[in-house]
Amino acid sequence: MNIIQGGVCAAKGFTANGIHCGIRKNKSKRDLSLIFSEKRAATAAVYTTNLVKGAPIAVTKKNISDGYAQAVICNSGNANTCNANGVEIATEMCNLLSEEINIPAEDIVVASTGVIGEVLDINPIKNGIPELVKGLGDNSAFAAEGIMTTDTVKKEIAVSFEIDGKECRIGGIAKGSGMIHPNMATMLVFITTDCAVSPEMLQKALSTDIQDTFNMTSVDGDTSTNDMVTILANGMAGNTEITAGSEDFKTFMKALNTVTVYLCRNIAADGEGATKLVECKVQGAKTKQQAKLAAKSVICSSLVKAAMFGSDANWGRVLCALGYGVKDLNPDTVSVSFRSAKGEIPVCVQGAGVPFSEDKAKEILLENEVEILVNLGVGDCDACAWGCDLTYDYVRINGDYRT
Amino acid sequence: MNIIQGGVCAAKGFTANGIHCGIRKNKSKRDLSLIFSEKRAATAAVYTTNLVKGAPIAVTKKNISDGYAQAVICNSGNANTCNANGVEIATEMCNLLSEEINIPAEDIVVASTGVIGEVLDINPIKNGIPELVKGLGDNSAFAAEGIMTTDTVKKEIAVSFEIDGKECRIGGIAKGSGMIHPNMATMLVFITTDCAVSPEMLQKALSTDIQDTFNMTSVDGDTSTNDMVTILANGMAGNTEITAGSEDFKTFMKALNTVTVYLCRNIAADGEGATKLVECKVQGAKTKQQAKLAAKSVICSSLVKAAMFGSDANWGRVLCALGYGVKDLNPDTVSVSFRSAKGEIPVCVQGAGVPFSEDKAKEILLENEVEILVNLGVGDCDACAWGCDLTYDYVRINGDYRT
Repeated sequence: MNIIQGGVCAAKGFTANGIHCGIRKNKSKRDLSLIFSEKRAATAAVYTTNLVKGAPIAVTKKNISDGYAQAVICNSGNANTCNANGVEIATEMCNLLSEEINIPAEDIVVASTGVIGEVLDINPIKNGIPELVKGLGDNSAFAAEGIMTTDTVKKEIAVSFEIDGKECRIGGIAKGSGMIHPNMATMLVFITTDCAVSPEMLQKALSTDIQDTFNMTSVDGDTSTNDMVTILANGMAGNTEITAGSEDFKTFMKALNTVTVYLCRNIAADGEGATKLVECKVQGAKTKQQAKLAAKSVICSSLVKAAMFGSDANWGRVLCALGYGVKDLNPDTVSVSFRSAKGEIPVCVQGAGVPFSEDKAKEILLENEVEILVNLGVGDCDACAWGCDLTYDYVRINGDYRT
Repeated sequence: MNIIQGGVCAAKGFTANGIHCGIRKNKSKRDLSLIFSEKRAATAAVYTTNLVKGAPIAVTKKNISDGYAQAVICNSGNANTCNANGVEIATEMCNLLSEEINIPAEDIVVASTGVIGEVLDINPIKNGIPELVKGLGDNSAFAAEGIMTTDTVKKEIAVSFEIDGKECRIGGIAKGSGMIHPNMATMLVFITTDCAVSPEMLQKALSTDIQDTFNMTSVDGDTSTNDMVTILANGMAGNTEITAGSEDFKTFMKALNTVTVYLCRNIAADGEGATKLVECKVQGAKTKQQAKLAAKSVICSSLVKAAMFGSDANWGRVLCALGYGVKDLNPDTVSVSFRSAKGEIPVCVQGAGVPFSEDKAKEILLENEVEILVNLGVGDCDACAWGCDLTYDYVRINGDYRT
């Protein structure tokens, strides 16, 4: 498997674009994105479990209920959520695109991200769609920019791999930043592939993968109303369609996982206000579930996050987070180390502190990618969770988001 | 019922003191507190549910297993948690006090608060105990100061009430600030009363009360390892001992609730870095449990907390928090208003936004006590939760707590 260029346009038959249409006031920010497949594509999606759901989710669910779609349209700057006319507006977005690009409105995935509870004006979208469609091309980067809100960098990746003697590609773009604490589904992520996969197996691949990737990512503990991960597979790589849990399916899953882990790490690293990526790697758990609960509890702790911001080896807070997050924890078998490119330092062994060099620990934690290594000492299951530090800028950004 | 002066010394027979013994480096900060009852007192306690527990909790549990105690000793600056010799040190604290004050070590409640995982040196405590005991008197304020960590104000209150023709008193002190997200028990709170209550009924009163008070308070979502609420009842008011769920018990519960709600509000308002107290009052819920989940989810949301810091009427975040926090929510029946001393403003009715004056909303939210009023519109149960805003200072304090 190779990392390649091209994002969501890397897979055969996919083009994309992103423009500024006027939803966001800042004219230098793109706010409307489109991904298009030459051929109708098998499509799978997972959505937020928040009971307050964005209107676009209802429309997308209906549109892809037959397992196929051909385009994705997404605006930023307004979530089209908690509005009386939300479904109407999301449907209108599909209808307008359908007319311009000449595909059925029912083959369109629609998504929105931004402020909740303000009516989404259809006019800038209506006026922008012709330019959006006209500019379709190898523009994954524009599409990645058009879905950003408080993100500071665009997130895109693509990989190539071989199945059935054919070269296949998977590419993805994502938006993250704030309100990131996916539960069963997550954020806005659009993935494209030219690998031929049946809708059922595509859904299975996605639903399985997110359990260990997006669902293990948290910026602030808030599960968004508009989270959505969608994957379109148009089959243009020419491989025999994957329709069962074969070796080919495993190869596909592995490629998909490379894409999703990359996007998770980037979403976490670019969490609102974040100065560093924090990974919690848990080993020695009794069960996979225990390992996941442990990793996520550490990553979600405000106190651990603030300590990481201060590059403070305050491992007591890691123990504390394990103690309230893991029901059947035995504190006496827990060991903790911190690690980064600057080295690794054990700070707690079998539930008690060990002497360590504060200077060395500080040096390790000052890096912009740090790992919290936890060994629960009771089994052989592991898990990883991705998060970021809690900073002044998180507070600044969210104290004044609407204005 | 009347609010009175005196804190934990308001009830007959109780004296207290707090000194600087040298655990904390800053000599102007008291770090060792003592509460003493002339008579052995019925004693009840509730503890943290964190599985990583401070050593003092184990010692206290053992000491009050017979339902009685006569003194409370507590240090700040070090939590005596995750140390190999923790139980030994906590036991030694009881033994040293026992010798000095001439009561059995088994009648002493011991507690510690501060950094986790650093060995607690017994020497400053040993050297300080004679002065601590000598200064016993009407010094509730000193005791309240001696248990503070990052708290900026001491928390104490007392009330008087009548039972069985006798005037009774309940007083309490608390420390709060950070790592405040009690779950079945909470923080450090010491309550004294001269009302005669049997150990069983005292425990029942406390265990019932905390469900709607301390357990509905959150500063940062982190459940501490050392949380403890203790109440000592020495019976010196002279009333007939309360031994069952009588009218007298109800009167006692009401007085206790006045003390605990006051302490909860003050702990929330003095949350680490907080600029304001945020109360979420939920009405119209189907069940009490639904009301509590709703109130707590709103209070715990980092995004709602940051919006409150910015005095931003971003009610979409309130809906979002309800949507992931309440399993059986119907978003279409939810209404939200903001309220403070400056007035009340509805922002969402039946799940959709309503036009409102941003200027008026800002004026309301700029107050230092604000209420988020939620009506779920599906029943007649209600609940209240207490929290605070998320500020630059929370990050500053916790990015650099150990140094």
